[in-house]
Amino acid sequence: MKPLFSSPVRFPLSNNLFFLTSFLSFTSSKVHLHIVRAVLPNSFTIKTSKSHFKRLVSKGDRARKSCVVLATAVPVSKEVSANPRSGSDGSPSDPSKPQRVMVIGGDGYCGWATALHLSNKGYEVAIVDSLVRRLMDHQLGLDSLTPISSIHNRLRCWKAITGKTIELYIGDVCDFEFLSDTFNSFEPDAVVHFGEQRSAPYSMIDRSRAVFTQKNNVIGTLNVLFAMKEFREQCHLVKLGTMGEYGTPNIDIEEGYITITHNGRTDTLPYPKQASSFYHLSKVHDSNNIAFTCKAWGIRATDLNQGVVYGVKTDETSMHEQLCNRLDYDGVFGTALNRFCVQAAVGHPLTVYGKGGQTRGYLDIRDTVQCVELAIANPANPGEFRVFNQFTEQFSVNELAALVTKAGKKLGLDVETISVPNPRVEAEEHYYNAKHTKLIELGLKPHLLSDSLLDSLLNFAIEFKDRVDTKQIMPSVSWKKIGVKPQTVPAN
Amino acid sequence: MKPLFSSPVRFPLSNNLFFLTSFLSFTSSKVHLHIVRAVLPNSFTIKTSKSHFKRLVSKGDRARKSCVVLATAVPVSKEVSANPRSGSDGSPSDPSKPQRVMVIGGDGYCGWATALHLSNKGYEVAIVDSLVRRLMDHQLGLDSLTPISSIHNRLRCWKAITGKTIELYIGDVCDFEFLSDTFNSFEPDAVVHFGEQRSAPYSMIDRSRAVFTQKNNVIGTLNVLFAMKEFREQCHLVKLGTMGEYGTPNIDIEEGYITITHNGRTDTLPYPKQASSFYHLSKVHDSNNIAFTCKAWGIRATDLNQGVVYGVKTDETSMHEQLCNRLDYDGVFGTALNRFCVQAAVGHPLTVYGKGGQTRGYLDIRDTVQCVELAIANPANPGEFRVFNQFTEQFSVNELAALVTKAGKKLGLDVETISVPNPRVEAEEHYYNAKHTKLIELGLKPHLLSDSLLDSLLNFAIEFKDRVDTKQIMPSVSWKKIGVKPQTVPAN
Repeated sequence: MKPLFSSPVRFPLSNNLFFLTSFLSFTSSKVHLHIVRAVLPNSFTIKTSKSHFKRLVSKGDRARKSCVVLATAVPVSKEVSANPRSGSDGSPSDPSKPQRVMVIGGDGYCGWATALHLSNKGYEVAIVDSLVRRLMDHQLGLDSLTPISSIHNRLRCWKAITGKTIELYIGDVCDFEFLSDTFNSFEPDAVVHFGEQRSAPYSMIDRSRAVFTQKNNVIGTLNVLFAMKEFREQCHLVKLGTMGEYGTPNIDIEEGYITITHNGRTDTLPYPKQASSFYHLSKVHDSNNIAFTCKAWGIRATDLNQGVVYGVKTDETSMHEQLCNRLDYDGVFGTALNRFCVQAAVGHPLTVYGKGGQTRGYLDIRDTVQCVELAIANPANPGEFRVFNQFTEQFSVNELAALVTKAGKKLGLDVETISVPNPRVEAEEHYYNAKHTKLIELGLKPHLLSDSLLDSLLNFAIEFKDRVDTKQIMPSVSWKKIGVKPQTVPAN
Repeated sequence: MKPLFSSPVRFPLSNNLFFLTSFLSFTSSKVHLHIVRAVLPNSFTIKTSKSHFKRLVSKGDRARKSCVVLATAVPVSKEVSANPRSGSDGSPSDPSKPQRVMVIGGDGYCGWATALHLSNKGYEVAIVDSLVRRLMDHQLGLDSLTPISSIHNRLRCWKAITGKTIELYIGDVCDFEFLSDTFNSFEPDAVVHFGEQRSAPYSMIDRSRAVFTQKNNVIGTLNVLFAMKEFREQCHLVKLGTMGEYGTPNIDIEEGYITITHNGRTDTLPYPKQASSFYHLSKVHDSNNIAFTCKAWGIRATDLNQGVVYGVKTDETSMHEQLCNRLDYDGVFGTALNRFCVQAAVGHPLTVYGKGGQTRGYLDIRDTVQCVELAIANPANPGEFRVFNQFTEQFSVNELAALVTKAGKKLGLDVETISVPNPRVEAEEHYYNAKHTKLIELGLKPHLLSDSLLDSLLNFAIEFKDRVDTKQIMPSVSWKKIGVKPQTVPAN
């Protein structure tokens, strides 16, 4: 790779200016940039004379369709206090050396909130993301309720406000060469893996999306495991699973394992899984693969079987409108409570699928970020495959609809509820009692669903209601009607 | 697709001549062939004036690396009696219409024996195979103990001897377009799916083989499920799983499901799985995916969790040397008992991994073909996901070594046993009691491991001992040493 030209370039810069090219960010005035560009491969490096940018590199390989953007900057005006703490409050245990956390899927709903939270708590954070979720929105004609900035602008804004840098690696973890580079460049102490296709309806659109979901999720996670084994043996994997892996058994759901006495003998075994979409199945596959590598290679891993997340604001995403998180309300990516609030805001009936007795675990997104931090701060032991059920309360769909109706009325909204034919194949009335004590034991202080949260979520939905595309609200994907032909979206 | 030339060609042919080109077979004298060739796409069709070949088409698409060879021939001299029977003897229930069975992976060890057995029993059989296993042998420098004919010669020989035609579709089931074509062309009533990468050590060679194994197996099976849903809704899937999915729990292993009473409530749930290689895990993933599609789409499926298969001869493969089955003895594809017999034959010590207390279920390959036939003749109901444990006896590795030592001494062989460091991560001493009554209830008459079978297997190994490559005997793949770098085989 020979640079085609190399010359110092001087730019006069004003404070808090977030753009120059789509790859640059800076907050100090007058930096000297040495720009080195190469055409093949598509790559450039920028260094500042004041080392405000330790590295800012974009490596592109058209054949591999991946791109690395490194934006490691030395903190600017005031040196950021890493403020590391130890113990159950969820921060690094060694005050002299903040932990380095790679957040795969850090541009998504949970990933973005988590990356900011960890950065704010003093961790050194890198986001690894292919941004494919944004592409899916384009392809399906969907959009977040909230306007979201580009990942580059998000990170520039975060840096400007807090002085903290989050490194960015744009690429696909299914591309092992890319993933290896990110591991060797960032050297994570922990990897939080949100980087999967996360919608059950998306995985049930058609054959190609079903195959994509399983291939993407399973191979991506295998690659992460291999990268850990090869490059960062002591690294702790914090993997997002889902409560949906368990299905709805007629017995209590335990956290990952169950002790069974059978024909006079006893063993503690992985809790039986009954997933009900190709997406949920991909998470079961992941869990099984990870458990094996913990045993065979001594990988340390925590599987967070997360419930349905609601809410949109965290302390960090509320700091600036450019940090605003996405909020999905559509039939593909929207989830029950968030979707109900948007429906109430625009005067659309709340859409209960079938009988509405479907009961699941739920949690506030502020607890998602807290749980992940707790898992990082209290890592699994080498060889340990630890499973936490990550939710705070159980609700049936009917209970949620009633809560939103009540909260809506307080705000003067006329909220109706209708039952629509269930597009899924699932029990609509069933026993459900899932344990979720392990994260509490580590120090989780839950934000339970309160009237005030519902009020704020509804007000938030009302604020953005002009952005709602009501055509996207109804379920459009049927579990039974999935076929082999690629489904596409008409323009009209 | 325009033919570049088209002309009738006359060949004088003698009876039982198996070759003309690698794609032609015939058993009658003097047939008129109309050969049509096209260069793009790579395709030709041959028809005989006597309709001895209803179709013999090769469709090739270089980009997709798949190829369809259809060799549906009308039975020749004497019309083959389909001889269909009903009930527990494992044959088609409607005497007027033989069942059509697609055997995916029909060129492999179990698949080949099964395809011949079903054809012999009067089923209409098609083999679907990419032949990738033969490529793996080349790549790893391995070979079957027995010389095996090309799939084309195998099928010509079968036709010559029995008058029965087995159709051949050469291609990859991960290629959905190819698979769709085979479904729509052959219209199977049952699909027996052996078409997976089936070696645990192979899956543990390196990252790329681990990823290949899971991608190939999981996506291939997903495609089969989608093809069934789309094109043959009533088709019965008979899927080869493995007893290795269960691992070695400290309680009895049931057949697929276990009834658990927990905190005062009871449910029957999928039996917990603890697979111990990326290969075994791929089978667990398959089982979970299939179970879901049975529930969501009404697929009818039987999962045959097979034990370790031994032996090489079946009634059908013994009919002619060109029908001979493969026998693997090497460290990658060889399995315990077969490998021990080959080791004894060449005077190599029997290689017990670790303590040798590893206990597993075993079965004779003659029972493999019997079990598959029983499953086909007694199909699962729509929506039913049925699991049978397919083995007949349990042995520890030490017990097998002792049996082979005793049988070897009778034949004048000096048989030693050595313990080698276990390349796997597994318990070497453990409880093991796996149920296997369901196939017996359907009518399985087991061929238990007897002195005479061991004698015959040893004599078979002695017959071919000059073909043994002793460098391939020792285990070469370590579960713990697997890395991300592609492993290759030195030429010397």
